[in-house]
Amino acid sequence: MITLYDYLPSGNGYKVRLLLHQLGIPFRLVEKDIVKGETRTPEFLAINPNGRIPAIDLGDGRLLAESDAILWYFSDGTSFLPEDDFERAQVLQWMFFEQYSHEPYVAVARAWLHVFGLDEQRKAQLPDKLARGYAALDVMERHLEGRAFFVGDRYSIADIALYAYTHVADEGSFDLARYPRIRAWLDRVAAQPGFVPITKGDFG
Amino acid sequence: MITLYDYLPSGNGYKVRLLLHQLGIPFRLVEKDIVKGETRTPEFLAINPNGRIPAIDLGDGRLLAESDAILWYFSDGTSFLPEDDFERAQVLQWMFFEQYSHEPYVAVARAWLHVFGLDEQRKAQLPDKLARGYAALDVMERHLEGRAFFVGDRYSIADIALYAYTHVADEGSFDLARYPRIRAWLDRVAAQPGFVPITKGDFG
Repeated sequence: MITLYDYLPSGNGYKVRLLLHQLGIPFRLVEKDIVKGETRTPEFLAINPNGRIPAIDLGDGRLLAESDAILWYFSDGTSFLPEDDFERAQVLQWMFFEQYSHEPYVAVARAWLHVFGLDEQRKAQLPDKLARGYAALDVMERHLEGRAFFVGDRYSIADIALYAYTHVADEGSFDLARYPRIRAWLDRVAAQPGFVPITKGDFG
Repeated sequence: MITLYDYLPSGNGYKVRLLLHQLGIPFRLVEKDIVKGETRTPEFLAINPNGRIPAIDLGDGRLLAESDAILWYFSDGTSFLPEDDFERAQVLQWMFFEQYSHEPYVAVARAWLHVFGLDEQRKAQLPDKLARGYAALDVMERHLEGRAFFVGDRYSIADIALYAYTHVADEGSFDLARYPRIRAWLDRVAAQPGFVPITKGDFG
């Protein structure tokens, strides 16, 4: 049995939960509260030395961290990852875009407003986070012109990676009203077979 | 002929240049000076809507961005990317680690000190960048205990991705004296067949 170390409000963790549900792969959930520092204990650092969720134990002691690497591992050979070499590289392009140009702004603004709270330092940095987050949303909106999904016109882990924090961007004070294509794409993702919401932790 | 849009001081660009040299794949280099805003022109945004180098034109109009996605595209099927599914996921784990937990600190500190210069706001943020960069280097140093390379004990694109900014970390004021395993690994990477320094732009 797979063990998923996760924190339910985390979009990065949700990516893995959503894919495992859609693939019908059972898992045991072990919650680690990042607010209480539970991902920085010696016990957890033995699982992921980088001290972050999600991390997964494949059931035989093999450990894997980084949400998008975990998505790749489970989706390869399924309909959630294209077979064509160039499309596979495009999936990676969007996943690296998400982790470098989207998550540090869209997810961090949400974490401050929704999870950790806003102190003076964060309040000063919030406008920059919002501006860069909107820049990432602009790139997504433009890419979705004439496209149903991010790569190859088929639902893939690129969509899962981008959906995770985009669909809760409002919790980071982002207004998606100006992004009609993104909103239509969010609806398409939520209509996929086996879809589960971010609040669903247990399998089954 | 492949066209690589790049900026020579960029470690992200260097990853691609290094792999293409090591694979013996010729390319045409088109330099875009990020300091002069050349990656935010309408012409360049048509190549990469996210406005960043490196980006590559495969020669037939197909465009690909994100350094680590480009590394994956060219290395798949070569000795630079393992065949085993779990090792491939581990390569991705380290590349996502690099882009999320290493580059935003190790590379950004270097960019401020070495490329853009340090204004008051950056000066105030530098200690945090250095602390988080050292945290990433700590993770690398621990992982290299008993290992010659990051994944599967063989040189791969995971090493290329991490080498790019680690080997010039001193230009961001990082002191690698306390990291003997990282320094020995840097020497092993620099001894690989076909290695070229970050200053080498043209092919051949």
